[in-house]
Amino acid sequence: MPSDPFFHPVSGFDLPRFAGVPTFMRLPHVPPGHARFDEVEIGLTGVPWDSGTTNRPGPRHAPRQLRDASTMIRAQHAVTGQRPFEAANCADLGDVGPNPADIPDSMDRITSFYGDLVQAGIRPLTAGGDHLTSLPVLRALAKDGPLGMVHFDSHTDLYKSYFGGTMYTHGTPFRRAVEEGLLDPARVIQIGIRGSMYDTEDVDFAAANGIRIVRIEEFFDRGPEAVMEEARAVVGDLPTYVSYDIDFVDPTFAPGTGTPEVGGPNSYQALQVCRGLHGLNIVGADMVEVSPPFDASGNTAFLGVTVMFELLCAMLAGRG
Amino acid sequence: MPSDPFFHPVSGFDLPRFAGVPTFMRLPHVPPGHARFDEVEIGLTGVPWDSGTTNRPGPRHAPRQLRDASTMIRAQHAVTGQRPFEAANCADLGDVGPNPADIPDSMDRITSFYGDLVQAGIRPLTAGGDHLTSLPVLRALAKDGPLGMVHFDSHTDLYKSYFGGTMYTHGTPFRRAVEEGLLDPARVIQIGIRGSMYDTEDVDFAAANGIRIVRIEEFFDRGPEAVMEEARAVVGDLPTYVSYDIDFVDPTFAPGTGTPEVGGPNSYQALQVCRGLHGLNIVGADMVEVSPPFDASGNTAFLGVTVMFELLCAMLAGRG
Amino acid sequence: MPSDPFFHPVSGFDLPRFAGVPTFMRLPHVPPGHARFDEVEIGLTGVPWDSGTTNRPGPRHAPRQLRDASTMIRAQHAVTGQRPFEAANCADLGDVGPNPADIPDSMDRITSFYGDLVQAGIRPLTAGGDHLTSLPVLRALAKDGPLGMVHFDSHTDLYKSYFGGTMYTHGTPFRRAVEEGLLDPARVIQIGIRGSMYDTEDVDFAAANGIRIVRIEEFFDRGPEAVMEEARAVVGDLPTYVSYDIDFVDPTFAPGTGTPEVGGPNSYQALQVCRGLHGLNIVGADMVEVSPPFDASGNTAFLGVTVMFELLCAMLAGRG
Amino acid sequence: MPSDPFFHPVSGFDLPRFAGVPTFMRLPHVPPGHARFDEVEIGLTGVPWDSGTTNRPGPRHAPRQLRDASTMIRAQHAVTGQRPFEAANCADLGDVGPNPADIPDSMDRITSFYGDLVQAGIRPLTAGGDHLTSLPVLRALAKDGPLGMVHFDSHTDLYKSYFGGTMYTHGTPFRRAVEEGLLDPARVIQIGIRGSMYDTEDVDFAAANGIRIVRIEEFFDRGPEAVMEEARAVVGDLPTYVSYDIDFVDPTFAPGTGTPEVGGPNSYQALQVCRGLHGLNIVGADMVEVSPPFDASGNTAFLGVTVMFELLCAMLAGRG
Amino acid sequence: MPSDPFFHPVSGFDLPRFAGVPTFMRLPHVPPGHARFDEVEIGLTGVPWDSGTTNRPGPRHAPRQLRDASTMIRAQHAVTGQRPFEAANCADLGDVGPNPADIPDSMDRITSFYGDLVQAGIRPLTAGGDHLTSLPVLRALAKDGPLGMVHFDSHTDLYKSYFGGTMYTHGTPFRRAVEEGLLDPARVIQIGIRGSMYDTEDVDFAAANGIRIVRIEEFFDRGPEAVMEEARAVVGDLPTYVSYDIDFVDPTFAPGTGTPEVGGPNSYQALQVCRGLHGLNIVGADMVEVSPPFDASGNTAFLGVTVMFELLCAMLAGRG
Amino acid sequence: MPSDPFFHPVSGFDLPRFAGVPTFMRLPHVPPGHARFDEVEIGLTGVPWDSGTTNRPGPRHAPRQLRDASTMIRAQHAVTGQRPFEAANCADLGDVGPNPADIPDSMDRITSFYGDLVQAGIRPLTAGGDHLTSLPVLRALAKDGPLGMVHFDSHTDLYKSYFGGTMYTHGTPFRRAVEEGLLDPARVIQIGIRGSMYDTEDVDFAAANGIRIVRIEEFFDRGPEAVMEEARAVVGDLPTYVSYDIDFVDPTFAPGTGTPEVGGPNSYQALQVCRGLHGLNIVGADMVEVSPPFDASGNTAFLGVTVMFELLCAMLAGRG
Ligand SMILES: [Mn+2]
Ligand SMILES: [Mn+2]
Ligand SMILES: [Mn+2]
Ligand SMILES: [Mn+2]
Ligand SMILES: [Mn+2]
Ligand SMILES: [Mn+2]
Ligand SMILES: [Mn+2]
Ligand SMILES: [Mn+2]
Ligand SMILES: [Mn+2]
Ligand SMILES: [Mn+2]
Ligand SMILES: [Mn+2]
Ligand SMILES: [Mn+2]
Repeated sequence: MPSDPFFHPVSGFDLPRFAGVPTFMRLPHVPPGHARFDEVEIGLTGVPWDSGTTNRPGPRHAPRQLRDASTMIRAQHAVTGQRPFEAANCADLGDVGPNPADIPDSMDRITSFYGDLVQAGIRPLTAGGDHLTSLPVLRALAKDGPLGMVHFDSHTDLYKSYFGGTMYTHGTPFRRAVEEGLLDPARVIQIGIRGSMYDTEDVDFAAANGIRIVRIEEFFDRGPEAVMEEARAVVGDLPTYVSYDIDFVDPTFAPGTGTPEVGGPNSYQALQVCRGLHGLNIVGADMVEVSPPFDASGNTAFLGVTVMFELLCAMLAGRG
Repeated sequence: MPSDPFFHPVSGFDLPRFAGVPTFMRLPHVPPGHARFDEVEIGLTGVPWDSGTTNRPGPRHAPRQLRDASTMIRAQHAVTGQRPFEAANCADLGDVGPNPADIPDSMDRITSFYGDLVQAGIRPLTAGGDHLTSLPVLRALAKDGPLGMVHFDSHTDLYKSYFGGTMYTHGTPFRRAVEEGLLDPARVIQIGIRGSMYDTEDVDFAAANGIRIVRIEEFFDRGPEAVMEEARAVVGDLPTYVSYDIDFVDPTFAPGTGTPEVGGPNSYQALQVCRGLHGLNIVGADMVEVSPPFDASGNTAFLGVTVMFELLCAMLAGRG
Repeated sequence: MPSDPFFHPVSGFDLPRFAGVPTFMRLPHVPPGHARFDEVEIGLTGVPWDSGTTNRPGPRHAPRQLRDASTMIRAQHAVTGQRPFEAANCADLGDVGPNPADIPDSMDRITSFYGDLVQAGIRPLTAGGDHLTSLPVLRALAKDGPLGMVHFDSHTDLYKSYFGGTMYTHGTPFRRAVEEGLLDPARVIQIGIRGSMYDTEDVDFAAANGIRIVRIEEFFDRGPEAVMEEARAVVGDLPTYVSYDIDFVDPTFAPGTGTPEVGGPNSYQALQVCRGLHGLNIVGADMVEVSPPFDASGNTAFLGVTVMFELLCAMLAGRG
Repeated sequence: MPSDPFFHPVSGFDLPRFAGVPTFMRLPHVPPGHARFDEVEIGLTGVPWDSGTTNRPGPRHAPRQLRDASTMIRAQHAVTGQRPFEAANCADLGDVGPNPADIPDSMDRITSFYGDLVQAGIRPLTAGGDHLTSLPVLRALAKDGPLGMVHFDSHTDLYKSYFGGTMYTHGTPFRRAVEEGLLDPARVIQIGIRGSMYDTEDVDFAAANGIRIVRIEEFFDRGPEAVMEEARAVVGDLPTYVSYDIDFVDPTFAPGTGTPEVGGPNSYQALQVCRGLHGLNIVGADMVEVSPPFDASGNTAFLGVTVMFELLCAMLAGRG
Repeated sequence: MPSDPFFHPVSGFDLPRFAGVPTFMRLPHVPPGHARFDEVEIGLTGVPWDSGTTNRPGPRHAPRQLRDASTMIRAQHAVTGQRPFEAANCADLGDVGPNPADIPDSMDRITSFYGDLVQAGIRPLTAGGDHLTSLPVLRALAKDGPLGMVHFDSHTDLYKSYFGGTMYTHGTPFRRAVEEGLLDPARVIQIGIRGSMYDTEDVDFAAANGIRIVRIEEFFDRGPEAVMEEARAVVGDLPTYVSYDIDFVDPTFAPGTGTPEVGGPNSYQALQVCRGLHGLNIVGADMVEVSPPFDASGNTAFLGVTVMFELLCAMLAGRG
Repeated sequence: MPSDPFFHPVSGFDLPRFAGVPTFMRLPHVPPGHARFDEVEIGLTGVPWDSGTTNRPGPRHAPRQLRDASTMIRAQHAVTGQRPFEAANCADLGDVGPNPADIPDSMDRITSFYGDLVQAGIRPLTAGGDHLTSLPVLRALAKDGPLGMVHFDSHTDLYKSYFGGTMYTHGTPFRRAVEEGLLDPARVIQIGIRGSMYDTEDVDFAAANGIRIVRIEEFFDRGPEAVMEEARAVVGDLPTYVSYDIDFVDPTFAPGTGTPEVGGPNSYQALQVCRGLHGLNIVGADMVEVSPPFDASGNTAFLGVTVMFELLCAMLAGRG
């Protein structure tokens, strides 16, 4: 069923791209409580939060900058021909209000907000936030059992703890998610891992639990298509989450992030892998770790929203 | 009458300042056509347009950046104690959609938009746009006769034409406004004028028409209070427009502008002059020539919106 | 015939690269009216103009920044061994003075300036300017009939109009050029096209008129050599124009542009395609859409002038 | 007693200012456990921590950047003639290692570290950190009873709580410090307060407890000397802490901070007020809220360390 | 005698300020050897050289950036009404080509170039270069005996040597100049001196030789007019050199410099002091220590050329 | 033999990466004279010096910025599994203090410092400095006969002289090294050479002396593995120096350098080539030409230290 025109974005032929109150992809702003909230099918949501960051901060500023950059997105996917905003009712749901000085409180706020989306049948496309954001989101989405996950990152985020026992940081979300039964480790694949290592504690955990890690050397040797083919096989047809840490991409293409690791994919490959997600049963997706204070040119944000557009099209593949 | 709570901004105690879809001062977004449009008393409006710029461009990006910075504005004026958002229904009316490749078309769009505001009894507080913005705004506001004007700027913007006869640029708006009967030159005062000069054509026009020019040397010698006392005397009790070119301020304090002139007021004086406007009969005000591409730190935008908050309080002095 | 020593650039062994009044590639400044104007064979010309820009502005500042960066260019092409400044009389012709507040006036000034070059037998290598620049240049160059064109860009620039009927913007020049008979669409190839799309109006026009579009996916799949071999076949031996929009290159390599599209060629490929132009009958070439306000590092300008050096060598292939 | 030569900084006549491992003011690095730790009299200490920040983050990066900038500091105060490094054994004690994802843990680490300094008879000069840093420092320093405080800031930092009951943020440290008996409110003066206000809850608390607030208007009207004369009278001869929030200074002079408020003192006045501290009984001092990610030029850091040098000289006034 | 129209700058009414090959103040480029070289009266000359810099480098890039910024300068002085380009034949003489890897060779090249100016009766207005630039210039200008000097700086530049005996750095030029008899110390005044000190070796030399030092505290206490009145008395009617180190100005107003010292004059005072030079017998002037790599906004360059325009007007006071 | 724990770096699990006095890779600071200096096996040394730079300056600031970025380096190489800091005693030896105003003096200081390392049996890993740095280092290292060299660069640095006979610049070090018998030209390979050329003087010298040059086209055509295989064959088993000019890498990935040449390797290839060095007999290595003033994002420094970590692992291949 085609989307309702209320949910169509403003065109750059009508209003120049630099004009207007910036919402994600120029969609209507339909926060919880809005009269048409229940009609939303895909909810673009911001989580401006970085309290789990152990290194350089900044993702608290990402949703706003991503909204700003997203006015450059147009209506049609150039390769697939998809017109996603006509295929489903998409809307900007606004931001979850975090508590920057209280991690547990913020996690509860996020899980609660996403619980409402699940309740309303809205699939979320999230603009984080640091990577700890994914944990409270998964708590809401995995209510009916563990999910599979395709995870793009230069880090595994599978560490046990930091700083002598701190369990909730952006380096630990997926360790927690496996422990809490939110993810099925046999249906998890991590792509792009690289950089010098503390030790092998994270990869040992992955190996012991059946998480598939595709390091960057393998990624470049086999190529994006082959790797994504394997990714589709790993997660299969069951409900799957997609988590995209912008530091998956080489920091030259995405400097605006907190823990850059050189030697990563370029921006073409950053988009290419998303096209490999088409056909999956995607219950939600996120774009995390964009840090505007380290993104002087704004290019990271523009790449980030272009990836979000690709993720949106992947979530809608097979429709419209 | 206190304002309706619908028109109250979001507090930074509830939602962190970096969160949320950014509207001017976190006010509700009430564009023309919105159900509560007619209840608005002060309309904060963006005019993202810089086609009249003869030098470095960029003000087309100003409304968006000013909205972003404006989330730092809180509810109460520290010196006067005013709580402007409780004193009047204030709202973000959105942007006038310009045509960046057609000056006459854009001017018509602006005049038409502002005509609707006048019709609805909304006083506009504008975020330009280059200084040509003021001309189509004045065409809407001066329907009942010429206005007085307090004009802060380092330039007179009184030139006859540029580039061999081009009549509409950001260097000519007030020459046109006087010619078109939108301004009463005897009730116009220009404050902060400085910088090397082409010739004396603009100041000769001012002298011939009774426009009062306070050059920067006089401004510093007499001080902001004395100058503003004179400004109030010049415009008197009749309807008055306030036009604030950010290049009035020294470019170190406001680097994000197209035609900087060194040796200007500091940021304290930038605010101080606004307090000298209290008591005037202000029918509209604008903040123009903010150019984000030249404002790497974003400080110009933050100063710009702080001035806008001062202008808002001046527009509401005597209320609430 | 070797060039006259008057037209030889200053060497970095004699004067450090950071010294001296910057002209294009340190060539002599020979504006129209100069005693040796008629001896010039290749005229490097600036068109500091961006009034056709519908998005982020800035190319009005490009010629000056490109001159600055161009002092890094040395005398010899490393791969072909060409010494272009010895092969032909090259000179910096200065800038066409545009009227930033009047598009038709500016187009006339440009066409008139280039008409003088044609008259003097000078082949132009232009530093724009936004992409609308190419239209008035083509009006001068295509006096004897439609030209072929090799066009590097991420956009087709084939739209009919913007903002409800505006015909002259940087998104429409080649639609106009085909309509005006300046280009033979059957001899036009566009390379690098990508990014989300408004609709298919531009590509439908291309298809209907026989314009060949090589999208980025095909470019990467087939590789630069194969694509350029086809490009040479498309334009053949007849007079051909080369138009190089810097946004052809990935915005990480060329951030200083107004409408970036991620996922493009890298800087090596940016040069490689120019080498594929050798052998063509090039009557003029341009480098457009460089926007210094968005090029904090200056790298876009340096890439831009390196491409200009490649274009110059392509224009002179077979000589010296 | 003159200081031991071991504690003399490296001179810029011997080693260029850009060379060498950067310690604060090129002093020796004498962390706890070092053989000469007990000989230290003034300990320059970093607290790289910003978890209490409710707005833009970044002070976690301040100690490192301040060390870098501090290599510009030379041996002698130009006005007083003091040579502080010869008057007392000064050293860089290194950084307190915070836990960026756990506020209570970090506060305990800081109080414990400073407890060791107190134990060793070392007076601390701290490079924060956001303003919450001052609270755990005061907990260590005020072991023998409440302290007086001279507080430079544009904010009172006297709020009760944020985000629905969060008690420990950079907006609440001095409310907590009064409640905990670490500060004697009758001996506290806050200088430079400005900016739009949430409400009057903070200033009401100040009024009720006898805290003296000098708003920026009074500061400019009376001048730095008169205000500092009053400050000396307020704190008297008893033990006093000096807390210097860099946002006291106008954000044009100190853009690298999280919550800028325009209209503040210039850099000359920023130093002048420190000279007004001479003669006080200063038990410790801090420089907080420097945020390098927002300090593109590094000027904030240079101003910050110059203020630290002034604070050091104030701590040593009457010696050497 | 009015200047020849050949020497008139291009007007911004004819050619937009961002267009054209940038020469100083848009004057004709008349290097030595040019047919009209001997007609020049004031020669604006670049010395792109920073080999004497002991701290952060960059002034080698200053002449080019100053030329770029100087296209903002217009024809008439707003306060005095002077039209300097009509009062004397002014021209851009180009740059002295330095040898960046050989200090003595570079000094000889500079002295030789300026010797030719002296020979031709051209008074130089120099854009350095670090402050060592002034020494080889003075060697050319002081051929007939020691000169007086008004010196604006935050440093005395009177040190004996650096790094164990190196005599030629930007911290020693005026020590050398006094020793070589190029300056009459009794006719030298240094204004704006500040910052922490190594020791008193430089000020002791000043005191012993009768050089007058006006420290910043005195400058602010007495005010620019009183200080400049004294400066005029110090140098009297005899031939005088003016040397303006941009670090005289507060680094917030002029961040683009190598050895910033906070707490200096603002941009208005930076211009004001130049007006206090009118009436002096100025044989040459320079603007030094502008460092573009540290001037992200370009504001330092714009302030620098505005000061150069003021210096030019001071050199021509009493004419036209 | 495993390294002594004294020489182990601080872990990011214990102290956040942004905390602490920054030494190279968080190693202990063990300058000459330190009690444990003689136990050091690999000495990371800074040479903050750029007096040989003929173009844009800045490498004098590189060691400090590289130390700052190096706190991101962790303990283990992800591909080889090496834990280099456990395999050998590594330490930060501090910086060689150069004389920025005297090239011969600086070269002597460097050779003397490195002579002490050779004496103590410490292999140096150097953070320059411009490329002239390599010459005085080689003078110390090649005491027992000429070395082989693997040289990554976009320039040959084999020129005879600059500016009319200046022999010591960053464009001449390896010409001098061959002439002085420090390098065996038959065992030298230069990889990545590109950019427009002055002439063929450098490559003619290479050809005449048997130096192998792999231009960038060959590098891309054959691939990094094949090229490095040849490199290993060229230098063989004899003592070999590795010199890595950061401008080898494409300037988009490494903008912070003085003489960028577009069209180079990406950051993955930048690391890959280092892995091709494993097995060689490396007596020393350097990372030169990093210029922080042109590295706004700090990414060049992060890439630079990641390469240094790779070089360290190559120097230790076969151990631990
Ligand atoms: Mn992650
Ligand atoms: Mn990551
Ligand atoms: Mn104006
Ligand atoms: Mn203005
Ligand atoms: Mn185009
Ligand atoms: Mn394009
Ligand atoms: Mn505070
Ligand atoms: Mn504060
Ligand atoms: Mn100086
Ligand atoms: Mn100085
Ligand atoms: Mn090199
Ligand atoms: Mn190189």
